[in-house]
Amino acid sequence: MVTKSPYTLLARSSECKARRGEVATAHGVFQTPVFMPVGTQATVKAVTVENLKDIGAGIILGNTYHLFVRPGHRLIKEFGGLHNFMNWDGSILTDSGGFQIFSLKELAKISEDGAAFRSHLDGSRLFLRPEDAIEVQQALGSDIMMCLDTCIPYPTTREETVKSTALTGRWAQRCRSVHTVRDQLLFGIVQGGMYPELRKESAETMVDIGFDGYAIGGLSVGESKEQMHDMTEATIPHLPDDYAVYLMGVGTPEDLVEGVWRGVDMFDCVMPTRNARNGTLFTSTGKLVIKNARYREDKKPVDSNCSCYTCRNYSRAYLRHLFVSREILAYHLNTIHNLHYYVSLMSSIREAIENDRYSSFRNDFYGRLESK
Amino acid sequence: MVTKSPYTLLARSSECKARRGEVATAHGVFQTPVFMPVGTQATVKAVTVENLKDIGAGIILGNTYHLFVRPGHRLIKEFGGLHNFMNWDGSILTDSGGFQIFSLKELAKISEDGAAFRSHLDGSRLFLRPEDAIEVQQALGSDIMMCLDTCIPYPTTREETVKSTALTGRWAQRCRSVHTVRDQLLFGIVQGGMYPELRKESAETMVDIGFDGYAIGGLSVGESKEQMHDMTEATIPHLPDDYAVYLMGVGTPEDLVEGVWRGVDMFDCVMPTRNARNGTLFTSTGKLVIKNARYREDKKPVDSNCSCYTCRNYSRAYLRHLFVSREILAYHLNTIHNLHYYVSLMSSIREAIENDRYSSFRNDFYGRLESK
Repeated sequence: MVTKSPYTLLARSSECKARRGEVATAHGVFQTPVFMPVGTQATVKAVTVENLKDIGAGIILGNTYHLFVRPGHRLIKEFGGLHNFMNWDGSILTDSGGFQIFSLKELAKISEDGAAFRSHLDGSRLFLRPEDAIEVQQALGSDIMMCLDTCIPYPTTREETVKSTALTGRWAQRCRSVHTVRDQLLFGIVQGGMYPELRKESAETMVDIGFDGYAIGGLSVGESKEQMHDMTEATIPHLPDDYAVYLMGVGTPEDLVEGVWRGVDMFDCVMPTRNARNGTLFTSTGKLVIKNARYREDKKPVDSNCSCYTCRNYSRAYLRHLFVSREILAYHLNTIHNLHYYVSLMSSIREAIENDRYSSFRNDFYGRLESK
Repeated sequence: MVTKSPYTLLARSSECKARRGEVATAHGVFQTPVFMPVGTQATVKAVTVENLKDIGAGIILGNTYHLFVRPGHRLIKEFGGLHNFMNWDGSILTDSGGFQIFSLKELAKISEDGAAFRSHLDGSRLFLRPEDAIEVQQALGSDIMMCLDTCIPYPTTREETVKSTALTGRWAQRCRSVHTVRDQLLFGIVQGGMYPELRKESAETMVDIGFDGYAIGGLSVGESKEQMHDMTEATIPHLPDDYAVYLMGVGTPEDLVEGVWRGVDMFDCVMPTRNARNGTLFTSTGKLVIKNARYREDKKPVDSNCSCYTCRNYSRAYLRHLFVSREILAYHLNTIHNLHYYVSLMSSIREAIENDRYSSFRNDFYGRLESK
């Protein structure tokens, strides 16, 4: 199955590999570079789909593993797919379930055929083959599906990394073979651990198979920032320039700025939503821990430069009160703010690339952080 | 201080004591009979103020005790009052703190001067005199303040009830004397336990002092429905017909229908919000426990007759999935539905009274419940 790339390049930085583009899916076109809020269990935690639209999110991520164990992909298919089930009409990317299965650690066992694991909910024995991962994602009806890959912990020996990366390649081929639903895109995942030459090899394997987009997996797993940047740089040159590049599970605002600099188009991370629920808020001048006593009587919004619903209407003192009182509204308002921060950051990044001033944008970004 | 009643009678049932009116406050006019959602800690749990407006709530209730211990009334006053602090521009009624203090049981001790108690948060010793209750509520800037009353447990002997009710009367006089902020209304609270003649006496005491409205306190404390109705009936005839009557802490949808029948104008209760967070949803045909397995694949909305945001957009199966997955969105969507149910019920009640068909409305209401 050979398809036209869903990615369209719109502008390119003359200073670095940053690029401005868009990706067309069955549920519209989203602008890149993009950050995808994570909606693990058929909801982005603590917000509504209207909140996500207000914030400007064009695509969200769903977790195949979680939806597979509860409520089950067959049930979601009965409801016309994940979009209908959760009432989201923007684009959805689903991961393959691989990362979560590997996170179960002793509960998972990998063989050539697939991954044997136990449900984190009831301990029941489950088995996921690459073909199953595609079947499940086709049932979910996501716009972008991911191949089942093996996740390589950090650190791992070169020998183990070679083996595991090769298996990811064979699984990717099997995923590609059973991909039948044409309006669902399928992305391949490059592994290769912390070995540049294995990253290159893995990228070439994926390109040989041929996908609708390419992801860089196995990063943000404990390695240094430098290693993460090096592996990104070791991978992207071996991917076709006319396809989207997705850096999985990354990251901090700084990671996004650096990823874009190196040519990444798509990101996802639980950080903005999880931090929101822990009371850590992102601002243009750095992080703010809302429970701190210094905010007790603070009439200012979280970030005076922010135009989100939370900052337009609520003081730090009120948000602190809600958070220390463990009110559900705290998680809701904090999440709106943090997602708005991430989505707006990407919007500013896109504008900077369009105007070919990404280098100065990046300098200003770090300058503001240091001004705190 | 003699004031004009803030209550305006608009229509009266020819079949019972039900009446349709409105109450003017510094933050607008709300329609009665009314249900007031409870916003204990400067937020109605799990929803935004925009949700409350969409639902049609005209007045909400704040809990003086909770706001007094956290974040403190002085801080809220610094922020221009509770309305500004929580971003709500409709009316607010604050209770006196009495009910919560009494709920602390062994932590509270009553004397002529006031109530000594320990904070449920840090155990610190606090003392609340009737004058303090007004000072705190004036700092909060609520539209309707309540007198500090003594709450009489059920059952209580006649002798104890006489003493406690008399103290409530003396406290009411002291509250009245220190009430200085003219655009904040002050309501008196009738006690008298389960003794009709003490209810009459307490009502007369309150009317002699003269308030902007009158509440019936000390009900929904464990007595039978019949006793609750009897005490309501024993009180209302002794209150002036041109002032609003508020039945405190009540109750179920049936309690609201019965209270209106007997002449009550205002109600508040944590039931719709608390039940929402426990997964119990109100419908026109009775309660629905969303976690039940029977809803696993149910594509219907919670209530086909409901026009709330939740019912317009989500299936029972999705709500069940969110609830069993303990997703915050479950509490949000459930709360929107339950509050919409309560607020819409009151709207239907008002329409029925306007058209003088409250008796048939009440019959239909029970008929639908039994049709389940």
